[in-house]
Amino acid sequence: MKNTLGYSLRTTVGDIEAREYLKAAIELAIAAGTLTLPYFRSGVEVDNKGLEGSFDPVTEADRAAESLIRQRIADRYPTHGIFGEEHGAKSGSGLTWVIDPIDGTRSFMSGMLHWGVLIALFDGETPRIGVMYQPFTEELFVGDNATAEYRRGTVRRTLQVRPCGSLRDAVLASTGPDIFVEAQQSEAFNRVSRAVRLTRFGGDCYLYCLLAMGQLDLAIEAGLKPYDIQALMPIIRGAGGVVTGWDGSNPAMGGQILAAGDARAHAQAQRLLEASA
Amino acid sequence: MKNTLGYSLRTTVGDIEAREYLKAAIELAIAAGTLTLPYFRSGVEVDNKGLEGSFDPVTEADRAAESLIRQRIADRYPTHGIFGEEHGAKSGSGLTWVIDPIDGTRSFMSGMLHWGVLIALFDGETPRIGVMYQPFTEELFVGDNATAEYRRGTVRRTLQVRPCGSLRDAVLASTGPDIFVEAQQSEAFNRVSRAVRLTRFGGDCYLYCLLAMGQLDLAIEAGLKPYDIQALMPIIRGAGGVVTGWDGSNPAMGGQILAAGDARAHAQAQRLLEASA
Repeated sequence: MKNTLGYSLRTTVGDIEAREYLKAAIELAIAAGTLTLPYFRSGVEVDNKGLEGSFDPVTEADRAAESLIRQRIADRYPTHGIFGEEHGAKSGSGLTWVIDPIDGTRSFMSGMLHWGVLIALFDGETPRIGVMYQPFTEELFVGDNATAEYRRGTVRRTLQVRPCGSLRDAVLASTGPDIFVEAQQSEAFNRVSRAVRLTRFGGDCYLYCLLAMGQLDLAIEAGLKPYDIQALMPIIRGAGGVVTGWDGSNPAMGGQILAAGDARAHAQAQRLLEASA
Repeated sequence: MKNTLGYSLRTTVGDIEAREYLKAAIELAIAAGTLTLPYFRSGVEVDNKGLEGSFDPVTEADRAAESLIRQRIADRYPTHGIFGEEHGAKSGSGLTWVIDPIDGTRSFMSGMLHWGVLIALFDGETPRIGVMYQPFTEELFVGDNATAEYRRGTVRRTLQVRPCGSLRDAVLASTGPDIFVEAQQSEAFNRVSRAVRLTRFGGDCYLYCLLAMGQLDLAIEAGLKPYDIQALMPIIRGAGGVVTGWDGSNPAMGGQILAAGDARAHAQAQRLLEASA
């Protein structure tokens, strides 16, 4: 992605710093993800449903993981900002850690596998590094916009999107039809869905990682928050993919998101979406 | 589940035999699942798309796994029948192995995680044992209608459904809205979907295993084949759940399937479905 606004107003992140931040983000994601695991499929929610002082393991896991990440960032980078799903924003001097401790909480609460911890480092315009970690499968996806990598156990694999020159050949994914709350959003999504080979539902952050891995061609969603998408942008772009708003805008603030492995599929999908975007 | 047709016409599977068959089914599922893994996320499909003599890794994995299972069953139990997705039926003298080497091929081909190997042993009316194995996550779900168990690494956990007295509290899952090909099927599904707390798409066999684990309350599907559901029935029932057709019939031959962890939720969902079932 060419940055059309230029870099002059942005905080510079040098290569050496970026490597250090990436290492820190990976450590944070693994620590936070590991913390969520005892809550996964714990069954505690049901036992307490409707009782006074009831205990919701999803919220509890979310909060515990975000608190851990925030504390470690505050200790290590006291001047940096933090923006997270559970505990809001803390402003800083230029660089902001944008975190979603459990992206895909509805998958998490249903015992499904397509969820993960998201951590990005945002320079005010673009997330410079992004990490997704799924602690149950021990899968790590990392990216810095230039490159992206998959790690699991001893496996290290460069992430690379696959070619897709036509929507007719594309596999499209989205978290679910209910994320398109406005009728015109549903209609726009359905126009693309009718044009592709296959549409798959269920996924959240995991979809974008599979797109970076060359397993899916398109991801289309709406109503995303900044912490839902920022960590995924450097992974998608590092793997050679394209991610924007439905109208081609900077997706860092969330909203309506269109990601594609191939710029040709992105352009074709965008034309179908834009009629109502 | 009370068997209303009685057992007199059925082939008897004694306890000792059942244990041996369960052990065999587990070995088969693990061997077949392990065989599919090199094809998972291999990316070969894309490289060859549209070429003469192109190679489809999903079909290839499916066939290779089913061939392995069939060969081993033929060697070990030469009088038994075999019914599989890829290679059809071989009749036998009473007991039939009903297998789906990769249930959830569209998940498999998209790099997603909700798929698995299914193996059941069918006595002509009811599957007596069932095994689901997900080789990537190394998760094994086994059941014999009386009990059900989850195994992963050193973890052994009894599978047990969770209580759900009202659809208002239920989490409903289904593979995707496109499996309801007839309008009246969609309408029936939507009546239940509107009555529940949350509907999740994406899952195939994995959904029913999560239901047995007490993570989901309802699964509703249509157009299933016998090999899509038989292995899951002894797991669901062994965990205390209920699985029938939408009209309450024996689900062993597939079709429209309704599974619930709690008989009360099953009855409420069935009433909503039956208006058009």
